[in-house]
Amino acid sequence: MAGGSGTRFWPASRDYLPKQFLKITGARTMLEETIARVEPLTQLTRIFPVVGQAHAEITRELLSGMPVQTLIEPVGRNTAACIGLAALHIKRSSEDEPIVVLPADHFIGDLNGFTRTISAGADLARSGAIIMLGITPNRPETGYGYIKTAGENGRSSGQIYYSVERFVEKPDYQTALDYLANGNYLWNSGIFIFTARTILSQIQACMPVLYQGLMEIENSIGTTDYDRVLNRVYSQLPSVSIDYGVMEKTALPVYVFRGDFGWSDVGSWHALYELRDSEHDEDGNLMLGNAVVVDSKSNLVYSVTGRTVALLGVEGLVVVDTPDALMVAEINRSQDVKILQEMFKRITK
Amino acid sequence: MAGGSGTRFWPASRDYLPKQFLKITGARTMLEETIARVEPLTQLTRIFPVVGQAHAEITRELLSGMPVQTLIEPVGRNTAACIGLAALHIKRSSEDEPIVVLPADHFIGDLNGFTRTISAGADLARSGAIIMLGITPNRPETGYGYIKTAGENGRSSGQIYYSVERFVEKPDYQTALDYLANGNYLWNSGIFIFTARTILSQIQACMPVLYQGLMEIENSIGTTDYDRVLNRVYSQLPSVSIDYGVMEKTALPVYVFRGDFGWSDVGSWHALYELRDSEHDEDGNLMLGNAVVVDSKSNLVYSVTGRTVALLGVEGLVVVDTPDALMVAEINRSQDVKILQEMFKRITK
Repeated sequence: MAGGSGTRFWPASRDYLPKQFLKITGARTMLEETIARVEPLTQLTRIFPVVGQAHAEITRELLSGMPVQTLIEPVGRNTAACIGLAALHIKRSSEDEPIVVLPADHFIGDLNGFTRTISAGADLARSGAIIMLGITPNRPETGYGYIKTAGENGRSSGQIYYSVERFVEKPDYQTALDYLANGNYLWNSGIFIFTARTILSQIQACMPVLYQGLMEIENSIGTTDYDRVLNRVYSQLPSVSIDYGVMEKTALPVYVFRGDFGWSDVGSWHALYELRDSEHDEDGNLMLGNAVVVDSKSNLVYSVTGRTVALLGVEGLVVVDTPDALMVAEINRSQDVKILQEMFKRITK
Repeated sequence: MAGGSGTRFWPASRDYLPKQFLKITGARTMLEETIARVEPLTQLTRIFPVVGQAHAEITRELLSGMPVQTLIEPVGRNTAACIGLAALHIKRSSEDEPIVVLPADHFIGDLNGFTRTISAGADLARSGAIIMLGITPNRPETGYGYIKTAGENGRSSGQIYYSVERFVEKPDYQTALDYLANGNYLWNSGIFIFTARTILSQIQACMPVLYQGLMEIENSIGTTDYDRVLNRVYSQLPSVSIDYGVMEKTALPVYVFRGDFGWSDVGSWHALYELRDSEHDEDGNLMLGNAVVVDSKSNLVYSVTGRTVALLGVEGLVVVDTPDALMVAEINRSQDVKILQEMFKRITK
């Protein structure tokens, strides 16, 4: 799933260049990193990036030479529609093979751990269960949904999985502190595993209007009508998350694996700074681009222009250098960059 | 005198674009501001900008349409040679008219006060005296030379002038504090007034080697040999300041006027920030260029690229945006930008 339109990495991210197309976690874009992460588990031809119409062209350029099967969403209609669309296409060749659903803008620190958990989950998904990956919280995060697990349910390929007791929306700070202390609450990572048959049957059961739309689209797949039908039908689909639309309502078993593999959704410049701590210089500066630094510490510099960024006597800043906008922010305020983005849009439109 | 190669406004100032060619004190470059400041006292044709060879082209473009008489220094040889060269040219039309020598990179807040003091000094210079302008210190500055005045000597056009008791090199901090308290020590502004006859006679008396070189040059003025002779002779001239070479040694009377007209040599980004305090926004930000600002105060932004500079949650910074380098510095450290300049030169050469 590469349909997001993130605003949290402004001015590097833009409507035309959301986070999954940025090289912020490594030498490649996050979308490329995501594909590379699962390629050993499957084949490129069985990877289906789903991207928005606005990013079809940049995706084509980025993934040219990779025989993946890119799907285009005419408009964004949240994760249930996105997953339903992909399931229709995947179903044509493998209705009962596990589909791993991955956001294209997450970071995974421990690839082996990730691979082990995904493999175990995929095995279990073949039984017809819906698999979610939960992340053990390490801070009282108020920006994520949580999954409360019931007791240990079983093991798959040696990995423990749990039943879901309930889903919880983004909590307030005090509640998040309680969840952190409790131990049975996991962050909902947005990573799912199920077969096409399973998820489509549950969309049918839990979201009949969406299902009806998907069936209209399915009839056109492989015909010259596909683009026309997709464009007409997709924008009419209900815009609901798969969590809310299916996971919370399904009668099927939903199991959660603990994904303790250095997961991060890289939600801000500050998160990126902390994530790449092994690359900090001795003064804690993370320099992604040309830089000269004097008496400065704990700064993040990200430059895509090739210009030199010079720091003198500054601390705890994020400096982002792009062709038309330059940001200097206190790094602890980096969750507020969307305010700058809105102001920038107003003055430049 | 526009021959300086200032490094204190890096990255806006460069070897190819020193401070006098920057629009930092207003809508025009400091050189243009300097010319505009004295034009009411004379005529454009009687203004002689002296610039380095490296800046001949930019000066020509900048002053095109202004019938000033620009003189080129093949190399920089300090102020005595610069002033001597200008005096040779000016002497041809007016040997006994006062010459006002002005650095081209100073700021003057009170134009009327400046004009009054210059006029009074010019009147006195006709008598054959050497006139200096001293600035009443308002801080224990260790970066300037000082002039210790003797008692009040007389008045010219109603303005008091003083004899010089002695010249003092840049003092240490404790000494500067003493000077500030004493009241008889003035900053040496680098502004002088004298006739061509006076200054050339004193160069002859105090700096005979320089004088000899100037005479060689003088013989070629108005001939096709001028450029050749100037290039050959000028680089051999002694490189000495007019203060040290003449003012401190001359037997002629040297008088000092107090220049209390909002003078600043604009020695750093911080000085510029303070100078333009009437343009600060309500949070004390001085925005010279496109900017969006959230929760930030006491910052200086200077952008020459047309890009938008966005600030979030920052305080006391100077952000300078140029096509090939971007600086973010603690504004109180702005006297140290030359360190960055040197590092930048090393990595980009």
